[in-house]
This record gives sequence, C-alpha cells and structure tokens, in this order.
Amino acid sequence: MALRVAIIGAGPSGLAQLRAFESAARKGAEIPEIVCFEKQEDWGGLWNYTWRTGLGRYGEPVHGSMYRHLWSNGPKEALEFADYSFDEHFGRPIPSYPPREVLYDYIRGRVEKCDVRKYIQFNTIVRWLSWSEETRKFTVVVDDLAKREVREESFDRVVNATGHFSTPNVPFFEGIDSFPGRVLHAHDFRGAEEFAGKNLLLIGSSYSAEDIGVQCHKLGAKSVTISYRSAPMGFRWPMGMKEVPLVKRFEGNRAHFADGTSATLDAVILCTGYQHKYRFLPNALRLESHNRLYPPGLYKGVFWQGQPELAYLGMQDQYYTFNMFDAQAWLVRDVIMGRTALPSAEEREADIAAWVEREEGIQDSFGAVDFQTAYIRDLLDRTDYPGFSVEKVAELLKQWLRDKQEDILGYRDRTFTSIVTGTRATPHRRKWMDELDDSAESFLAEAPERRTG
Amino acid sequence: MALRVAIIGAGPSGLAQLRAFESAARKGAEIPEIVCFEKQEDWGGLWNYTWRTGLGRYGEPVHGSMYRHLWSNGPKEALEFADYSFDEHFGRPIPSYPPREVLYDYIRGRVEKCDVRKYIQFNTIVRWLSWSEETRKFTVVVDDLAKREVREESFDRVVNATGHFSTPNVPFFEGIDSFPGRVLHAHDFRGAEEFAGKNLLLIGSSYSAEDIGVQCHKLGAKSVTISYRSAPMGFRWPMGMKEVPLVKRFEGNRAHFADGTSATLDAVILCTGYQHKYRFLPNALRLESHNRLYPPGLYKGVFWQGQPELAYLGMQDQYYTFNMFDAQAWLVRDVIMGRTALPSAEEREADIAAWVEREEGIQDSFGAVDFQTAYIRDLLDRTDYPGFSVEKVAELLKQWLRDKQEDILGYRDRTFTSIVTGTRATPHRRKWMDELDDSAESFLAEAPERRTG
Ligand SMILES: Cc1cc2nc3c(=O)[nH]c(=O)nc-3n(C[C@H](O)[C@H](O)[C@H](O)COP(=O)(O)OP(=O)(O)OC[C@H]3O[C@@H](n4cnc5c(N)ncnc54)[C@H](O)[C@@H]3O)c2cc1C
Ligand SMILES: Cc1cc2nc3c(=O)[nH]c(=O)nc-3n(C[C@H](O)[C@H](O)[C@H](O)COP(=O)(O)OP(=O)(O)OC[C@H]3O[C@@H](n4cnc5c(N)ncnc54)[C@H](O)[C@@H]3O)c2cc1C
Ligand SMILES: NC(=O)c1ccc[n+]([C@@H]2O[C@H](COP(=O)([O-])OP(=O)(O)OC[C@H]3O[C@@H](n4cnc5c(N)ncnc54)[C@H](OP(=O)(O)O)[C@@H]3O)[C@@H](O)[C@H]2O)c1
Ligand SMILES: NC(=O)c1ccc[n+]([C@@H]2O[C@H](COP(=O)([O-])OP(=O)(O)OC[C@H]3O[C@@H](n4cnc5c(N)ncnc54)[C@H](OP(=O)(O)O)[C@@H]3O)[C@@H](O)[C@H]2O)c1
Repeated sequence: MALRVAIIGAGPSGLAQLRAFESAARKGAEIPEIVCFEKQEDWGGLWNYTWRTGLGRYGEPVHGSMYRHLWSNGPKEALEFADYSFDEHFGRPIPSYPPREVLYDYIRGRVEKCDVRKYIQFNTIVRWLSWSEETRKFTVVVDDLAKREVREESFDRVVNATGHFSTPNVPFFEGIDSFPGRVLHAHDFRGAEEFAGKNLLLIGSSYSAEDIGVQCHKLGAKSVTISYRSAPMGFRWPMGMKEVPLVKRFEGNRAHFADGTSATLDAVILCTGYQHKYRFLPNALRLESHNRLYPPGLYKGVFWQGQPELAYLGMQDQYYTFNMFDAQAWLVRDVIMGRTALPSAEEREADIAAWVEREEGIQDSFGAVDFQTAYIRDLLDRTDYPGFSVEKVAELLKQWLRDKQEDILGYRDRTFTSIVTGTRATPHRRKWMDELDDSAESFLAEAPERRTG
Repeated sequence: MALRVAIIGAGPSGLAQLRAFESAARKGAEIPEIVCFEKQEDWGGLWNYTWRTGLGRYGEPVHGSMYRHLWSNGPKEALEFADYSFDEHFGRPIPSYPPREVLYDYIRGRVEKCDVRKYIQFNTIVRWLSWSEETRKFTVVVDDLAKREVREESFDRVVNATGHFSTPNVPFFEGIDSFPGRVLHAHDFRGAEEFAGKNLLLIGSSYSAEDIGVQCHKLGAKSVTISYRSAPMGFRWPMGMKEVPLVKRFEGNRAHFADGTSATLDAVILCTGYQHKYRFLPNALRLESHNRLYPPGLYKGVFWQGQPELAYLGMQDQYYTFNMFDAQAWLVRDVIMGRTALPSAEEREADIAAWVEREEGIQDSFGAVDFQTAYIRDLLDRTDYPGFSVEKVAELLKQWLRDKQEDILGYRDRTFTSIVTGTRATPHRRKWMDELDDSAESFLAEAPERRTG
C-alpha cells in the first residue's frame, strides 16, 4: 500500500516538497499519497500578504509578518529556483531586488506550472499530532476553518513546513505596559505611513529592525532610534536614524537606555525576532530552538532525530531561502520514497554533532554564508535536484553583505547575474529610496525610455 | 473513587466554579478532585489587564480585551456577589462605577479569602480535548507554556469557562487592506492616547463602539465617526462624535458610507464583536453561536446537550455577569456532585427550546434584561447560592439603560444602592469625564473633603 504523507504548510517550503514529489512523478516514479494542509486561504506562506494582524478571519493566529512596501532584502539571484528560472517566469530580465508581490508571483508561477494545487486543503489548520508506536502512524487532527469541521487522519510520514518567522518573540521592558503610544512587534507591522512625523523606537538589531527602520525613514518618520542588546548593526545610517544600547526602562513616553541617555517617543516597534512555535506538536516531536543555522536534533537539518518519520523544512536561520528549501525537500522526498536510506541513529547523531560544532566555530557573517553554502552543497550532492553552483551564490551573498555595509539605503539599486541562466539583471527605473510604488504592475512595466524606444 | 473535574479558565466564571465547590467543602461535603487550567500567568480572565496584543509571551493568542481607562460600564451593584459584598471587600461604601483595577481587586478578594488558588495551574493551556464513549472519560491535552511540557490527563467532567469576548470577529471591507493608517480590532485596543488629534472611524454599534468612542473623545480625538450595520445606538453624542450607516468601501484613507457620504480618516477601529471560539474542542463538543442570550444546545444555559458531562459557563450575552456566573456554577456543581439529577435528553431539549423561543420574542433591551433575570431566577431556585433579589437588580439595570439614554458621557456619575447590603454608593470626587486617573489607588483614596473633614 502507498504511504500517506502529510505536508503541513503551503509556504515556499511546503510547496518545494509538493514540487519535489511532482517532479519524481513526472519522471515516471510512483509517488506516495500526499496531502498538504494550509491554514491560510491561499498558498505562498509569508509571501501571501495580509492586512490582518493578531488573529485572522477564523480566529487563528495570523501567519503573515510581511508589510506594504516590503522589497526583497537579498538579491533574487540568491534564491532562484534551479528548475524554474526568473527568465522562464518573466520572459525577460528584471531587476535584482523585486518587491514582495513580484516574488510572490514567481513562487506561484512554478507551482501553477507543475499543477500541485490539487494536493492542498486550504483554510485547514493542523491542531494536534501524535505518533503511535503500535501502529507506527501519525494521527493528525485537522480543523477545516471555513466548514468548521474537525477530523482525524492517519499518516505514515509528516513534513512540518510551517515556518518559524510568524510567532513573535515579545520581551517585557520595565514600564512598557504603561507606554502611552502604540507598542507593536514587527510581526504586526503593516506599513510605515502611520509613523510619518513620529519619533520611533525600534528594539532589536537584525533584519527587521534594519528594514522597518529604513522603511519608516523613507516614508517620513521624524526620527528612528534603534536599540540593540548584543551589538549595533553599524551601518552608515542617514540623518534621523541612529543606534543606541538596550532600553532599560520606560517612564511614560520616555525610554532610558543602558548608556544613560534617554529619548521621548511616539511609538515602539519590537523587532525582537520570532519563536520556533509548533502548537500542534507533543514534546517528543517538537523542535525547540532559537533562530540559528543548525537547529538541534535535525539530521541533515530536516529529519527529526527522535522520530525520523517526521521531517522539518526551512527551520534554519536563512541566508538562503527558496533554493535551500528545494534541496531539503528533494532529500526528504528521496528518503520517504526509499531511494535513500537513513543511516543508524548513532551515525545521524554524529553527523548532527559535527554540523553543530562547525556552526559554533562561525566567526562572522561571511563564515555564516560559508556554513550554509556547505550545508546546501551536502544536500545537493544527494539528490537529482538540478545542479547549480551554490558556491557562486555564496560569492553573490558576500557581495550583498559588502553592498549593505557601503550603502544601507542604496544596496537595492545594485544588479547581479543569474547563476542559473547567466542573465544580467536590469536596473530599476528609479532608485529604491525614490520608489514609492511597490506594485508588481508598476515594477514590471517597461522602463519609460524602453517603452518609447 | 472521587470524580475528577477539569475547569478550563480562571476568569470570573472559572473562579465561580472553584468557589462553588469550595463553599460545599466548607459546609462539610466531600467534593470531587478539581483541577483548573489557566493559560494566563494570573487569574481574573479579561480583568487581568495586559499591555500585550496579538500573541502573548509564549506565542499564544492574548486573551485580554480590556484597555487602560476602562471603567465598569454597568453599576457595580448589578454584578455584586451575593456571598461577598463590596462592603466586605472594601470596608466602606465606594462609587457605583469603578475602574477596571478596582473590580479586579474585588474579584480577587473573594477567591483569596476562600483559598482556591491551589487548584489552579497557571500558564497552562488546554490544547485538545476528546471524549471516549468506552471509558466515559475526557482526555485533555494540556501544554505547560512556561515549562514547555505537554501532557495528557483524564477527567470525568469538564467545565469550559474560557470566555467568549476574546477572539475578535474581523470582517473585511473593500479597500481596508490598503488603508494607510492603523487598522485594529477593539480586542487590540489598549488606550486612546495615540488617537489624540486624529479622525477615527469605529465600525459596530454596541458596547465596544460606544465605550471606545467615548474614551477616544475624552482623551482628545479630533473626531469619532461610528458606522453601524443594523441600527444606530442613538445616544445624544457630544460634538465631535456621530453615527453614520455602514462603510461600503475604503479608497486610500477615505471611507465611503452606505448613505453616499464619505470621510477622510487616520485610523479604523473594528468594534465588530467576538467569535465563540474553542480551538481545543472537536465538533461534537463545540458550541457554535453568535453573541446571544440563549446560545443553542446548552441545557439551563450550561450543560452541553450532546454530552452533559461537559458544561459551559458564561457563554451568554451579558447584562448580568459575576452573579450570573455564580448561579450557573452552583448548579453545575450540584449536578456534578449528584445533588441534582439531570432530566432526560428529551426533557432537556424541550426546556432549551422553550427558552430559545422566549428569547426570540424579546422586543427591546428592557425585554432582554427581563429575559436574563428570569433565566437567573430559574437557576437560583435550584441551589443554595445565597438568596438575593435578582428582580431588584433588574430594576437597577433598567435605570442604567435610561441613564445612558439621557447622558452617555455622564451616566457613570450616578450612584445606586446595593441589593445585597442596602449600602448606598458614594459619588466619586470627580465627574467621569474629568477623571483621567483610573488607578485603584487614586479611586480608593478618600475624597479630599473627607480627608480634611
Ligand atoms: C518580514 C519577513 C521578510 C522576509 N523577506 C524575505 C526576503 O526578502 N527574501 C527571502 O528570501 N526571504 C525572506 N524572508 C524569509 C522567509 O522565511 C522565507 O522567504 C519563506 O517564506 C519561508 O518559507 P516557509 O515555507 O518555510 O515558511 P512560511 O513562509 O512561513 O510558510 C509556512 C506556512 O505554513 C502554514 N501553517 C503554519 N501553521 C500551520 C498549521 N498549524 N496548519 C496548517 N498550516 C500551517 C502557514 O499558514 C504558512 O502558509 C522573510 C521573512 C520575514 C519574516
Ligand atoms: C472590553 C470588555 C469590557 C468588559 N467590561 C465589563 C464590565 O465593565 N462589567 C462587567 O460586568 N463585565 C464586563 N465585561 C464582560 C466580561 O465578559 C465578564 O466580566 C467576565 O470577564 C467574563 O468572565 P469569564 O470567566 O466567563 O471569561 P473571561 O474573563 O474571558 O475568562 C476566561 C479565562 O479562560 C482562560 N482561557 C481561555 N482559553 C483557555 C485555554 N485553552 N486553556 C486554559 N485557559 C484558557 C483565559 O485566559 C481567561 O483567563 C467586559 C468584556 C469586555 C470584552
Ligand atoms: N525582506 C525584508 O526586507 C525583510 C525585512 C524584515 C525581516 N526579514 C527576514 O525576517 C527574518 C527574521 O528577522 P528578524 O530581524 O525579525 O529576526 P532575527 O534575525 O532572529 O533577529 C532577532 C533580533 O532580536 C533581538 N532580540 C531578541 N530578544 C531580545 C531582547 N530580549 N532584547 C533585545 N533584543 C532582542 C536579537 O538581538 P541579539 O542579537 O542580541 O540576539 C536580534 O537582533 C529574517 O529571515 C529576515 O531576513 C526580511
Ligand atoms: N466596561 C466597558 O466599558 C466595556 C467596553 C467595551 C465592551 N464591553 C463588553 O464587551 C462585550 C462585547 O461587546 P462588543 O460591543 O465588543 O460586542 P457585541 O455586543 O457582540 O456587538 C458586536 C457589534 O458588532 C457589529 N458587527 C458584527 N459584525 C459586523 C459587520 N460585519 N459589519 C458591521 N458591524 C458588525 C454588530 O452589529 P449588528 O448590531 O448589526 O449585529 C454589533 O454592533 C460586552 O459584554 C460589553 O459589555 C464593556
């Protein structure tokens, strides 16, 4: 009898898993029976923008953390699918840093082409999951939110692709509970417009703080103060933006920082990262991790050591995204289909330990890129995922890191050459700082000089 | 063997259930083994104010819907516990409309006195619940959020006291997804300060719209426009507040209403009520209802018809609150303890049908008060809950309705006489509209004239 496989989540990772199976089927293989459960009403995961915050239409936690005017924060050439290039999707070169809607379109293009929508049950949340040693099956409790129907289903394998940038980590700071202005986490940030003319405090010193800070600056915030815990980001900030040490306490609308300075503020945005949070999993199956390159307990970064019938996709901190999820999904597929055998528990444990040790030796972000590159290379060598030089992508990511150091407001104006097709990206018709229209329609319109040319 | 009873939630309803059992124990009865699971880190339910919105410290939906400067919207004499008077708690008369913190203190006073905290497991969420016909027991999956420990426990009876004003109902309106200002539901409203000087749109025409509107007006909003679906509230609004028909669509920051008018706005607050939402329940045990006086399928408003080993507390729309929860909890206790037998399923069904029919005949809010009064009377007559004249409370509620018609900004300046003790409330030292300090400390400080008197 065919195995039954549940894929939880239809974001880029879950879709990679569907695509991996579909690709094997197209090559003539018998694939297992697959069912994908997606709690949102459409696919694309975080890329499926929602205006909602907090709890959604059906009263479940809103998954989306993206906002209006979000543009890719890395060059698109670093995440290109090896089996579906940007050229194939758009039919012509486009710039390296597209806005969200354009990348969303690209993600959809691949899965529409390979016709995997039929496997997905939308508006369906996985509520609870358990493993029976006796039957050697998982029982999955799913709740169809639109039909209000709960049911149980049985599966041989489960792939958890629910993402880990959705449940906010919201630390408490003394006095924040009586701060009179708006207090929100980056997860609930939907646009910078309401902060025009305001004095903002952002807490955190990673991608969200950087991008939301720059975003608010671009859309007219009066000042943006970014408060770090471990270390400042150290970019060359424009006038009106600065970094300060950690906030120690609030007094009314005043924040006091560790260096003894203070500032009066209108709003606070907590850019303090996300929790790995799997509400539907019992302890024995549940990954506990902070945001890191090699979460513990996952063989090859995917197979749950305690129960390798369960795989996790995309649970790493991410220099690479779509192409890494693909490399993972192809390997998971091959193990599920019996094409690749898992080594013994001891061997797996030793492999995990070696990666974790290597992770601990990472010195800086260049080292982090090298680490994740080596990880992906290790995966790629094990499956038939179309070959591409992940090492060349690494060079491109290092250039991106240098570009940001040089010009945090201007790095998105650079262009790169595709590793997959060799196509050179075109420059966008306006500098990112001057571009206030983030619609796909406007972005994909030919540059005026061409249109009249 | 003693029965095991799970009580889910330690808000006013769950605490009423604990108090009911404890009261029987104090009178010498053998009570079942009781365990209360509470997902928040403290008791009091909605009254336990939190600055958090969306998802909480442990990544679970934030329960709280209350905000800074929330004052009781009904006279305290309408919700007084018959077994723990305001006089007993405060030692002297206080005004009729206390701020949240004062009522929270009162709720806590009773449960501290009767020593029921020992039954409660805090930071513990009920994730899933199922009933086995074979063992005739419930299996409850609970997740200790602080310890990150999931476990299963078995119970003979379950009392669901998780409240129904916590999961927002958030309808979509055309264009709201690109409204450039802040969009929030009343559930996430924490204070009016950030809306000072702004033009606000509130959608909804019930308690939240009324109170948040008045609140924002009090704290300096430039204008408050309230948009109704079925009917306007029709209060005599002050300058700067008005009611308009339902918004049909947004265009940028402009809202267009059903009567053809439009307005430019800075923020939108959806005061569109709450969903009955029980994420941990399978269909067979799950109440599906809108906010109404007699939700379907609950015998005497509490016992789940499909499985009367499960009871629901406080699931009604609420003119009465704490005293109604008490009346319910006492009856649930007596049934669990075998003091009162449940009639046959047919008789229960007929009783439910009679109440639902009566509910359908309600003409206006006076009729609604009479309905809920009769319902509580029916409960009171069945247990040893200390007698009080709920009919006199009804008169008081009708006076409250008249007071609001007369003066929506001033009704909280009125005083009432306790039905339980006969004590007359004292006036507060300032008019509600002039009182910007909602702390218990300030509210309970003697009036200046007395202090010096
Ligand atoms: C603000 C922000 C901006 C980002 N920008 C970029 C960028 O510019 N470039 C880039 O490459 N990456 C970016 N990322 C990284 C992002 O993590 C990946 O691009 C990608 O979305 C991860 O895919 P995923 O499928 O693993 O997870 P997600 O995209 O998070 O998808 C997970 C899916 O699982 C579903 N789900 C969750 N729980 C359940 C459940 N219980 N039952 C059923 N379904 C469930 C969700 O609804 C969702 O659809 C960004 C992340 C954030 C937070
Ligand atoms: C904004 C607002 C203002 C109000 N003002 C007044 C007022 O002025 N006067 C008045 O009398 N009433 C007021 N109410 C009505 C209010 O419903 C009642 O006063 C009372 O709080 C209801 O008590 P409860 O215990 O039924 O529910 P809640 O107070 O909602 O308590 C439910 C408890 O269950 C817990 N819980 C939920 N899910 C789980 C789970 N899965 N596992 C474990 N625990 C769980 C929650 O954390 C919470 O502590 C107001 C309501 C709102 C929304
Ligand atoms: N496309 C875009 O433009 C865009 C925009 C935003 C985000 N993203 C993506 O979103 C993902 C998440 O990024 P993120 O920045 O939200 O999370 P993150 O990279 O995990 O960073 C979390 C930050 O929060 C800080 N922090 C955590 N707890 C704290 C505390 N108690 N006090 C103070 N600071 C605390 C951390 O500081 P320490 O360093 O001290 O630990 C760190 O700086 C990334 O993949 C990123 O690429 C993309
Ligand atoms: N202490 C206080 O001061 C205070 C303050 C706020 C709230 N509360 C309490 O909180 C509880 C909840 O009150 P609530 O006002 O939030 O909820 P509610 O009483 O259930 O009212 C919900 C409102 O939302 C409207 N609505 C629902 N869906 C809509 C849609 N799609 N479009 C437009 N309107 C829609 C309803 O309109 P229709 O009439 O057309 O159905 C109704 O007016 C009550 O117990 C109340 O006492 C107390």
